[in-house]
Amino acid sequence: MKRFLIGGLMLSVITPLWATESPIPRNIIFMIADGMGPAYLSAHRYAHASNAQIPVEPTLLDTLWVGSAMTYPDDDTLVTDSAAAATALASGIKTRNGMVGQNPDGERLTGLLAHAKAKGKAVGVVTTSQINHATPASFLTHHASRRAYQPIADQIATALTAGEVDILIGGGRQYFTEAQHQQWQQQGISLALDWPQLAQLSQLPAVALLADVALPFALDAQRTDRLGLMLDKALMLASAEPNGFVMMAEASMIDWCGHANDIACALAEMQDFAEAVAVAKAYVDAHPDTLLLITADHETGGLSLGSMGQYQWRPAEVAKVSGTANTIAQALLASAEQASQPISRRLLVQAWHQWVDFELSTQQIEGIERRIQAQDSNALSQYIARIVAAQSDTGWTSAGHTAVDVPVLAYGVGANRFAGMQNNTSLAVTLFELLGVQVQ
Amino acid sequence: MKRFLIGGLMLSVITPLWATESPIPRNIIFMIADGMGPAYLSAHRYAHASNAQIPVEPTLLDTLWVGSAMTYPDDDTLVTDSAAAATALASGIKTRNGMVGQNPDGERLTGLLAHAKAKGKAVGVVTTSQINHATPASFLTHHASRRAYQPIADQIATALTAGEVDILIGGGRQYFTEAQHQQWQQQGISLALDWPQLAQLSQLPAVALLADVALPFALDAQRTDRLGLMLDKALMLASAEPNGFVMMAEASMIDWCGHANDIACALAEMQDFAEAVAVAKAYVDAHPDTLLLITADHETGGLSLGSMGQYQWRPAEVAKVSGTANTIAQALLASAEQASQPISRRLLVQAWHQWVDFELSTQQIEGIERRIQAQDSNALSQYIARIVAAQSDTGWTSAGHTAVDVPVLAYGVGANRFAGMQNNTSLAVTLFELLGVQVQ
Repeated sequence: MKRFLIGGLMLSVITPLWATESPIPRNIIFMIADGMGPAYLSAHRYAHASNAQIPVEPTLLDTLWVGSAMTYPDDDTLVTDSAAAATALASGIKTRNGMVGQNPDGERLTGLLAHAKAKGKAVGVVTTSQINHATPASFLTHHASRRAYQPIADQIATALTAGEVDILIGGGRQYFTEAQHQQWQQQGISLALDWPQLAQLSQLPAVALLADVALPFALDAQRTDRLGLMLDKALMLASAEPNGFVMMAEASMIDWCGHANDIACALAEMQDFAEAVAVAKAYVDAHPDTLLLITADHETGGLSLGSMGQYQWRPAEVAKVSGTANTIAQALLASAEQASQPISRRLLVQAWHQWVDFELSTQQIEGIERRIQAQDSNALSQYIARIVAAQSDTGWTSAGHTAVDVPVLAYGVGANRFAGMQNNTSLAVTLFELLGVQVQ
Repeated sequence: MKRFLIGGLMLSVITPLWATESPIPRNIIFMIADGMGPAYLSAHRYAHASNAQIPVEPTLLDTLWVGSAMTYPDDDTLVTDSAAAATALASGIKTRNGMVGQNPDGERLTGLLAHAKAKGKAVGVVTTSQINHATPASFLTHHASRRAYQPIADQIATALTAGEVDILIGGGRQYFTEAQHQQWQQQGISLALDWPQLAQLSQLPAVALLADVALPFALDAQRTDRLGLMLDKALMLASAEPNGFVMMAEASMIDWCGHANDIACALAEMQDFAEAVAVAKAYVDAHPDTLLLITADHETGGLSLGSMGQYQWRPAEVAKVSGTANTIAQALLASAEQASQPISRRLLVQAWHQWVDFELSTQQIEGIERRIQAQDSNALSQYIARIVAAQSDTGWTSAGHTAVDVPVLAYGVGANRFAGMQNNTSLAVTLFELLGVQVQ
């Protein structure tokens, strides 16, 4: 907006008009980073600046950051699960933990995608987990329990064939049958079952199921382009829609790394997420009638950048880890299996160094040996995550979620509507207003 | 700002002009909540809503929240101490941990108060700790080590008699002599040495030293009006100044509770801080040419609202604690001292319930007994803090600081300049710009 001062009055030349007074986004990209509390943004930034150069460059996520959201559910706790939180973000109504697209009385809620569909827009869901997991499920279906994976998958299939959703990209192949595949294709719904087929998709409606359940972790797959590639395809396909689109894209597995208190895992998922945000931002830059809204459903793990009284956080140590704790645990157990029992310390350390580029203390080696002897892969995985946390001075308080507020990022048309502290339900309500949906 | 659309052009009638394009605050109130990471704001809110009513009311702090700040120092760590952070906030220059009002090369930095003084404004410092502690010291003095309490106090006295600071309110009586008191009074500097005398202060310059070192903790003093009363007096006195004022007010002891991982202590200090923020906001409402800027120097303790996999955070349990962990530890040790050795379990539990309104498990009673027998008051205090944390599902990761970004709150003239993610140094630089100070 340019301003000219003329005789004490201000003249504003505004191009275009919708950009200021009445922003009406044609398209909405709603990205949810599952589990991404505020410390994850700090961690992601400092992981990029691990050579400790001053000043530290803000990340793209930093530059988009405008607000914060409270996440408590309508339950006997202040700590939400992903189902209640995603239902709040999809429908503007808080509900009980575990419930998907229903209010606490079990009544079906009309969510963002249904409202957008009623406005003639294309709608879709992109996720790194299975598409019937809590967050996408809360945008697409209605069920008293997020754990009802097959009924939820069935509801998603019904929504797809009924034309209620135009694009689905993520994991979850095992929940859908060959017969369903054939039905979709007979209906003109394109289907991709791997990454090369995803690249071939050229029109809506389309479904891409790229893994039996969830996609592999970014760190294990040694790639951080998963969500970005999927989102890019979804945006490209939806771009041709005459009335615009609403797309929900979830970085599901930040949360899973948080549950495992696995900082290396979390930073890789954050990087994957950030690359997808860059895809979304580039879309908004090219299509300025688009709103990009980003938040988390809740914080996971009580992540903190500092522990045990140390005035340090060492992302460079985290960068020395090239697999999730669980993958490293499996690899060490496999090495032990192959070795003459018990595995020699030399071979164990060799196996460790195939995954991690820092040294183990004698105490840590003994700790690993004990858990290998006990054949306890869970305990070994947790122990490895703790070693990485200790090495990097990373702090965690829980294997579950916390009640800490989450970041809100926004860009494009209407982004200013999401500034400051707000309830997670307000995000949905504001989206409804921007879509011109009447909700009482 | 009203807008009229005339032939495709926008006409803006702006009254007054400074309110939009060039906001120039006459007064600045800069509040620093030492140690207040983002989880402290969430905790403060939910402590007010512990009956779990939906929706949870936003607190005053929530409504003022506009941004976030990175806190890393210019040092070989991403985790700042209070001296480097306060120096960044006072001068716009990052420095090494421990340094006060100096750059990493030991050169003196010109801070906010000196700049404001050069503009003819009254300047002052209010704090719940001793006035020569790291944060106020960084605004008032220059030293390579924050631990040099006496030299720093001497510098403050020199600044006072030189007219470089107009009001000082806080603790720290023991660092100043009777001779200094007399010199001040001869120079026309009013002096208060207790709360009733503080109330009597009626003009600048003025000093109030309300405790030998720091003020008692809010929780132990059973009052949450300490910072508010001090700030109210400071604002009242500064209000008469012809060119306005810049006031730094620090809630010092949130940090100390964080170091002790004492959530009851932290929530009481947060309440004390919030009441002072209400005082400051009321001042801005009555004097709209004032900017209120609020941030923290860093996060302390790695606080999280959830621990050990529990999907709960229970502020109602925290509210059952009526003393800091250290005070309760001293009380239990005193009870044991008075009792026939060793103290009976009945008397111990009785002593506990004089301070805490929830039950101890047998294991916890035994844990307390062991630490009493060892006469280890530090260990007992830490153990009591851990009991309260476990009871309330509060998580902590460290007895030190963390690198997590901190909240930024703002209100009044120029508040919009502090929105979004920024460096802590940018806060100072923006304040300098608002004051019309040229800094290269």
